[in-house]
Amino acid sequence: MKRVGILTSGGDCQGLNAAIRGLGKALYQAFGKDIEIYGIEDGYRGLIEGNYHKMKESEFSGILNLGGTILGTSRQPFKLMRVVDENSGDKVQNMKDNYRKMGLDCLAILGGNGTHKTANLLSQEGLHVVTMPKTIDNDIWGTDITFGFQSAVDVAANVLDSIHTTATSHGRVFIVEIMGHKVGWLTLHAGIAGSADAILLPEIPYSIDSISKVIEQRSKAGKRFSIIAVAEGALSKKEAKMSKKELKAARAAEPYPSVAYRLAKQLEDATGHEIRVAVPGHIQRGGSPCPFDRVLSTRFGAAAARLIREKKYGYMVAMRNNVIVPVPLSEVAGKLKTVPLDLDIIQTARDIGVSFGDE
Amino acid sequence: MKRVGILTSGGDCQGLNAAIRGLGKALYQAFGKDIEIYGIEDGYRGLIEGNYHKMKESEFSGILNLGGTILGTSRQPFKLMRVVDENSGDKVQNMKDNYRKMGLDCLAILGGNGTHKTANLLSQEGLHVVTMPKTIDNDIWGTDITFGFQSAVDVAANVLDSIHTTATSHGRVFIVEIMGHKVGWLTLHAGIAGSADAILLPEIPYSIDSISKVIEQRSKAGKRFSIIAVAEGALSKKEAKMSKKELKAARAAEPYPSVAYRLAKQLEDATGHEIRVAVPGHIQRGGSPCPFDRVLSTRFGAAAARLIREKKYGYMVAMRNNVIVPVPLSEVAGKLKTVPLDLDIIQTARDIGVSFGDE
Amino acid sequence: MKRVGILTSGGDCQGLNAAIRGLGKALYQAFGKDIEIYGIEDGYRGLIEGNYHKMKESEFSGILNLGGTILGTSRQPFKLMRVVDENSGDKVQNMKDNYRKMGLDCLAILGGNGTHKTANLLSQEGLHVVTMPKTIDNDIWGTDITFGFQSAVDVAANVLDSIHTTATSHGRVFIVEIMGHKVGWLTLHAGIAGSADAILLPEIPYSIDSISKVIEQRSKAGKRFSIIAVAEGALSKKEAKMSKKELKAARAAEPYPSVAYRLAKQLEDATGHEIRVAVPGHIQRGGSPCPFDRVLSTRFGAAAARLIREKKYGYMVAMRNNVIVPVPLSEVAGKLKTVPLDLDIIQTARDIGVSFGDE
Amino acid sequence: MKRVGILTSGGDCQGLNAAIRGLGKALYQAFGKDIEIYGIEDGYRGLIEGNYHKMKESEFSGILNLGGTILGTSRQPFKLMRVVDENSGDKVQNMKDNYRKMGLDCLAILGGNGTHKTANLLSQEGLHVVTMPKTIDNDIWGTDITFGFQSAVDVAANVLDSIHTTATSHGRVFIVEIMGHKVGWLTLHAGIAGSADAILLPEIPYSIDSISKVIEQRSKAGKRFSIIAVAEGALSKKEAKMSKKELKAARAAEPYPSVAYRLAKQLEDATGHEIRVAVPGHIQRGGSPCPFDRVLSTRFGAAAARLIREKKYGYMVAMRNNVIVPVPLSEVAGKLKTVPLDLDIIQTARDIGVSFGDE
Repeated sequence: MKRVGILTSGGDCQGLNAAIRGLGKALYQAFGKDIEIYGIEDGYRGLIEGNYHKMKESEFSGILNLGGTILGTSRQPFKLMRVVDENSGDKVQNMKDNYRKMGLDCLAILGGNGTHKTANLLSQEGLHVVTMPKTIDNDIWGTDITFGFQSAVDVAANVLDSIHTTATSHGRVFIVEIMGHKVGWLTLHAGIAGSADAILLPEIPYSIDSISKVIEQRSKAGKRFSIIAVAEGALSKKEAKMSKKELKAARAAEPYPSVAYRLAKQLEDATGHEIRVAVPGHIQRGGSPCPFDRVLSTRFGAAAARLIREKKYGYMVAMRNNVIVPVPLSEVAGKLKTVPLDLDIIQTARDIGVSFGDE
Repeated sequence: MKRVGILTSGGDCQGLNAAIRGLGKALYQAFGKDIEIYGIEDGYRGLIEGNYHKMKESEFSGILNLGGTILGTSRQPFKLMRVVDENSGDKVQNMKDNYRKMGLDCLAILGGNGTHKTANLLSQEGLHVVTMPKTIDNDIWGTDITFGFQSAVDVAANVLDSIHTTATSHGRVFIVEIMGHKVGWLTLHAGIAGSADAILLPEIPYSIDSISKVIEQRSKAGKRFSIIAVAEGALSKKEAKMSKKELKAARAAEPYPSVAYRLAKQLEDATGHEIRVAVPGHIQRGGSPCPFDRVLSTRFGAAAARLIREKKYGYMVAMRNNVIVPVPLSEVAGKLKTVPLDLDIIQTARDIGVSFGDE
Repeated sequence: MKRVGILTSGGDCQGLNAAIRGLGKALYQAFGKDIEIYGIEDGYRGLIEGNYHKMKESEFSGILNLGGTILGTSRQPFKLMRVVDENSGDKVQNMKDNYRKMGLDCLAILGGNGTHKTANLLSQEGLHVVTMPKTIDNDIWGTDITFGFQSAVDVAANVLDSIHTTATSHGRVFIVEIMGHKVGWLTLHAGIAGSADAILLPEIPYSIDSISKVIEQRSKAGKRFSIIAVAEGALSKKEAKMSKKELKAARAAEPYPSVAYRLAKQLEDATGHEIRVAVPGHIQRGGSPCPFDRVLSTRFGAAAARLIREKKYGYMVAMRNNVIVPVPLSEVAGKLKTVPLDLDIIQTARDIGVSFGDE
Repeated sequence: MKRVGILTSGGDCQGLNAAIRGLGKALYQAFGKDIEIYGIEDGYRGLIEGNYHKMKESEFSGILNLGGTILGTSRQPFKLMRVVDENSGDKVQNMKDNYRKMGLDCLAILGGNGTHKTANLLSQEGLHVVTMPKTIDNDIWGTDITFGFQSAVDVAANVLDSIHTTATSHGRVFIVEIMGHKVGWLTLHAGIAGSADAILLPEIPYSIDSISKVIEQRSKAGKRFSIIAVAEGALSKKEAKMSKKELKAARAAEPYPSVAYRLAKQLEDATGHEIRVAVPGHIQRGGSPCPFDRVLSTRFGAAAARLIREKKYGYMVAMRNNVIVPVPLSEVAGKLKTVPLDLDIIQTARDIGVSFGDE
């Protein structure tokens, strides 16, 4: 009998159920009656607290285009994992104990960067682990793309499309804040797909002067509106030079709930134009996965099952140059895949006249 | 030669171009070469400042499902219309002068409640006016439905759907703020279509106790999440008793950018649950009109053309019991169509267990 | 203890699960622990053969925007209901027996015209019946609108939108066949929403001459393409005069799979233009209900529960002038709601230059 | 002064306008007032007949998400290009003459496989040519992906989703025919994304026995429905052995309009199940490009502009391992990129239990 546990961890993301389904169906195809799959509830919390159930084969059907995760998820910061506390005791030990209690041959983990740190820790502690790269941020090191990313691009691009009609009709400047605290992949793709005039990424510090120029040049050219796509974590040139601590203090002293509002104020002051803000928020990570992500998630799920079949543990399945390959967890954990400044998509955007606020 | 001016005024709204197209095509069908149509730019501002152009027949083609308005729009508060000021002089006189300069037989106006006040004023001043009821709020007196409303319901319901998957996966309480400062039509329909557990409308004052009970009862029943749809203008029972002035002062003293944030804080304090907020904002009024609104806008446009053909001026075209009828502007202006408390949709919602926070 | 059976019958249609949910939730709210609901499988077939199960309250959750029907459905022609045959015996008696076996207080039936004939029969046989009007055709007598209709309009209009881009790019004439064997509501609404140049309905016999003229006049006016929306059951003027038998014979002698192909051949011969055909088919009745239908289905479901609470049996819940009212089954059964020739939507279409092929 | 001509050729496809926009904007950014762009109408036909116009910069704005092509297109079979005929004379000479008449430095061509044969011919004849790979079929040699493909996957997957609800509700077997006469990329991706139980591709000959087994095994396992995704050009094992001539004769002798109908008949005979057919057709290539294709088309357009700037002629821009690279036209022309049998996506599908009808 083969026993596999599955858990989904971190923020919500499209394609989780598709990947769970891919993994489950492939395991049932491979092992038939010799497989037992345990669904661990609410991410690592379920593994710590021992909340899990034996899944029926039918649970893996009909969930391909279902948003969210049938297993539930939670955010469980890596830095707290090693803290032994009153409530949950020694969390790492608890996870190991529950892994053994279930008699697992392998634990399949779906999650983002934080999740992978813990997954690597568990692997180093001797558990058999395979992982799948899930995040709308596309910032996991070692894979060209993560599932959830393209679905989030679709949502954010559609938001930009809608804002376009209002911006055009009213002749207004709009700032649309797109998810991404540390990296700009989502803002970059959605910004191009949604025809933004300026795209501000955490990787490319901006100056208010530069963005103001975009608005004013368009205005002079008779274009009644401008649309600025800004990542949650975009930084001004000045902010980019601050230490983490200085930045935190600067933020705390501001009245603005987020970057789009701060930018709006600064651009209103600089240009005299009325600036509107749109913050689509969570809808970028909710809802059905797009067909691209359904295929990708299924591929990742089936590839994870292949690793389990081959007893190749300690790997994340990754997409590299259109091929699925295993990448050692130790290479993935603790790294961040940011947008390279020489990426041809950046060049493409500059070529067609999009500003990154750094000119 | 028949001469007709068209202007669109007020906030952005789906279906404006569809209505413009319906009107334009019907006028060209009816009058052939004997029609001249003037597109007045950016709402009443264009009429005041004399910005308009003679439209070609081809401008009315290919715009049925285009969001926004090809004529531009602006918000021009009614109360400022009668103020004679340095910059724009006597605005009403300017509008009358430009109407005459164009040699119009009739002015077709598309807009919401504010727009209709000014339209009625122009009608009383002797201009020939026909209007079409446009607003996502569905709050225009005299018509069962306005165009733009159903499209906004579609967007808001889809937002609720997306939030659902995240709420389910994380076991969270979400407050989704839906447009509507004065009336709750949009929140009511979207809330039911999007399966909200509580729906808070300006028309039905809520108590925090009542909403807390919803969250706690669902929690007890093993339901891991709750979704609350709240209209921008929803009021607590206490607030509902305040004068306008008191309310404004109370708002000014609060740190919250809008109702959803205020509610989130109060519900966190009351229930101990972590509460998340989503504010979709402008996307509710942008983008393509839904097929329902395309048909409705076309019907309104064609009906307005019929009034012009029949020289029946001073009317808004309205939908009443599925039939298009003219309603005198004087009956429409200055009124607000709120959600009646005994509406069967409210009863329906209560019947299936939705709370309005007033129990 | 109150016992209610539910069955869904006839073709697939969006909103079935939403109506089932509305009914179920309202019954649980009204009766609490004193309600038992039986889900009867695959329409009348399940009632005849005794396939049903006691539904759990949780079955009514999470299905609001789920396409299809969780109960399954079947087409069971009314004329066969009274035939006693070897396999299923006396079907009407079987249905009565199973009704009694379940100990039902009432049977809630969701279906279209065929379904309502049988529902009326069962009511006349003494069973307690309430029904909900379901069909994408919108042809049920006694209600202004049926659920499923608007969702089908949305799909068909989107198909027309897609065809538009190809027609424009290639300068082609396209015929799009839209569902509707007996009535043209769906084709009429989708045709207007999708900007069709000609709309052919069962209610308005067409001539090839008239449609050819549309294509040629557009061609002369420099418009490179034309789009014709045709209902499955549209008839030429000649065909409209045939008896049912003659028509059947004429159809049998033709090589064309459906009306769009026949029309394409005739129009190619008449105009010399290359004509393309698109037959979207079943996708018009599949997939999620649109928000409009989710609200409508919920209203119907809750209204049916109200009838059951009040022991008002023998009624269909109907929408009339925006209000939900009960209509006696005897008034509904056996009738067909066709598109009236003087409908203002028809006039609207003519006003903006759409042809019905009858000029 | 730099002079560039643009033409779009072949079947309709999402993303054409996005690519035209990318090219045009990048040329205007690079050359400013020193660029003249000629829009050649209706594909090669416009180049043969001399139909073109000087494009304004504004024509490249606002078309990113517009379906179809603003330049028009036509199918102009390669084998007819070299035929000199009465009507159009020597077509190749005409194209060269018009190229010179416009004084072009380069001709930018967007099209599929047929288009690329002619593009290569023109390049060999001494014209400066750069091309962009456009097709929903994804079958152009030398590039990992073509624009239009992902949009078509989205449409076809959504069709499968809609069919799913009907198939489930009625317990039916559905065959969905997906575009692709020669290759199966679209059917493969849409089939996985749309949860098909069997996927039939031109590259993998099927047997009726094998597909029947899928239906029967699912039926035995209590699954009430099956969905088969079949490419237009799928072949049975017997047909795969036929010569082109034999196959043509066999097809001509059949009464079926297309593969799905033939398959339906054979499977009904083999299994006794009632089989339904859906043929979505042209909607797979119409409508707005998905965000993925908007980004991809923009990248291709900007890359083509870069080639023109660098005077690198005779190339197609291609995507290889996520990077845009130029590929010589002589390497592209006349080849076909079929689905490799050892593709990991095929393996993925088999892993989760999808049949390719070849077992």
